[in-house]
Amino acid sequence: MICKSIVKFPVRYYECDQMGIVHHSNYVRYCEVGRCDMMTKGGLPIGEFEKKLHVMMPVVSVELHYKHVAKVDDVLTVVSMIEKDPMAKVEVLNEIYNQDEVLLCTAKIVLGFIKSDTRRPTRCPEAFHEAIRKVGLGV
Amino acid sequence: MICKSIVKFPVRYYECDQMGIVHHSNYVRYCEVGRCDMMTKGGLPIGEFEKKLHVMMPVVSVELHYKHVAKVDDVLTVVSMIEKDPMAKVEVLNEIYNQDEVLLCTAKIVLGFIKSDTRRPTRCPEAFHEAIRKVGLGV
Amino acid sequence: MICKSIVKFPVRYYECDQMGIVHHSNYVRYCEVGRCDMMTKGGLPIGEFEKKLHVMMPVVSVELHYKHVAKVDDVLTVVSMIEKDPMAKVEVLNEIYNQDEVLLCTAKIVLGFIKSDTRRPTRCPEAFHEAIRKVGLGV
Amino acid sequence: MICKSIVKFPVRYYECDQMGIVHHSNYVRYCEVGRCDMMTKGGLPIGEFEKKLHVMMPVVSVELHYKHVAKVDDVLTVVSMIEKDPMAKVEVLNEIYNQDEVLLCTAKIVLGFIKSDTRRPTRCPEAFHEAIRKVGLGV
Repeated sequence: MICKSIVKFPVRYYECDQMGIVHHSNYVRYCEVGRCDMMTKGGLPIGEFEKKLHVMMPVVSVELHYKHVAKVDDVLTVVSMIEKDPMAKVEVLNEIYNQDEVLLCTAKIVLGFIKSDTRRPTRCPEAFHEAIRKVGLGV
Repeated sequence: MICKSIVKFPVRYYECDQMGIVHHSNYVRYCEVGRCDMMTKGGLPIGEFEKKLHVMMPVVSVELHYKHVAKVDDVLTVVSMIEKDPMAKVEVLNEIYNQDEVLLCTAKIVLGFIKSDTRRPTRCPEAFHEAIRKVGLGV
Repeated sequence: MICKSIVKFPVRYYECDQMGIVHHSNYVRYCEVGRCDMMTKGGLPIGEFEKKLHVMMPVVSVELHYKHVAKVDDVLTVVSMIEKDPMAKVEVLNEIYNQDEVLLCTAKIVLGFIKSDTRRPTRCPEAFHEAIRKVGLGV
Repeated sequence: MICKSIVKFPVRYYECDQMGIVHHSNYVRYCEVGRCDMMTKGGLPIGEFEKKLHVMMPVVSVELHYKHVAKVDDVLTVVSMIEKDPMAKVEVLNEIYNQDEVLLCTAKIVLGFIKSDTRRPTRCPEAFHEAIRKVGLGV
């Protein structure tokens, strides 16, 4: 494990669908909230990352498994983990829990790195490596 | 009335909230769908507008009145109208109906024009005037 | 002023559009986040409100004025205020600021009260009055 | 292949992020638009399905692979396919193309069936089998 980071926030009303549960598409977004919070904790917020390094991180694949539902007013904990050293791509694992520590969802998100101007693939920037090492297991 | 344009599309499941109705925030987005469709009909799709004219159209204000609810599987009709010649700003009026011609929502959206590089206000580009005249009352 | 409540959270990446700013539709959602947080602080979370009182709060109208833009990594402060005693409807005023205390947006959201089963209008429940009095000006 | 269904619609401006591309989370929603359109074509719109059969279809897992980006004004084609006879679960495969027939994304979405009242799993309703057989390969 290279780094592990945790962020908590309540479910928002508009995220709940007519089954009375958080719509499944929002978990993809929660994973992004987790990743961005991790980068901020590493001293490299995503906005700064894009602006200073001229690199962007498009998502290559997502895989999510839904185990239990979340409801309005639930407070979610999103755990973001990087286990493998990023090369051309970075793999972020997520676990999302509710306030009762029930595991709601697991996810694996793979992202690439591209140069903003050419939109061509590039290797993981050194600054990103530093950021995730800085996060470490501080959680 | 300078121009009037109509577009139809079904409500999407994820747009419905736990009251079993379209969440109110989506109507703001439906108005945008209507505006963009109008620009496309005028031969000036928003993507091209931004790229070729180096101008962007940020929203200055929105005002929406909700009269009846929409539900999943409803097919909506979004009417977009421009009544006043755009100057520094453009005012778009919207009416949103369901398949039974029930008026669900009225809206007034005001947008500005800014230069993409400086982000400073600019006047309504001539190409936009031409586009909405081209749309006319063709609906 | 009957009550005033404040909540802070960072802009999410997916909320930013291709102008590089928070899409205007999200402010409507931020106002909801503010309202729900206020109700939670008053001891009446929206989920409990709906379930126990069998009442729902559909939005009747929204009016938002956008003054400055928000960007990714900005931390927003949403202020929610109720000035007039709710009767058939409740009017919630919002002000949204960034981390530099720049006022980004003002909003007025009007909501009604309906019975969940009949979907007919009902008066503001006593529990809602109590909740907002409990919030008071605690902020 | 039991059924295959196609629906087309333009990218919406608000779906594009600050990389200038459709945010990856929206493809999860596009798959849902494809599924719901397929059910409507089979004579069993999702709203009716929920209301008449008292069954809901929560998503169990999603897996998406992103191959090329979509941009504003692109017109997308969402292909939805069911290859295996649904039992306790149904697996829907999606392919999403742009107007130039470039494959942007492939997806596999697995959904379960639960009774609305008890929220307990149930088998795929006969009406769902009929609906997808009715769709067939009509596309």
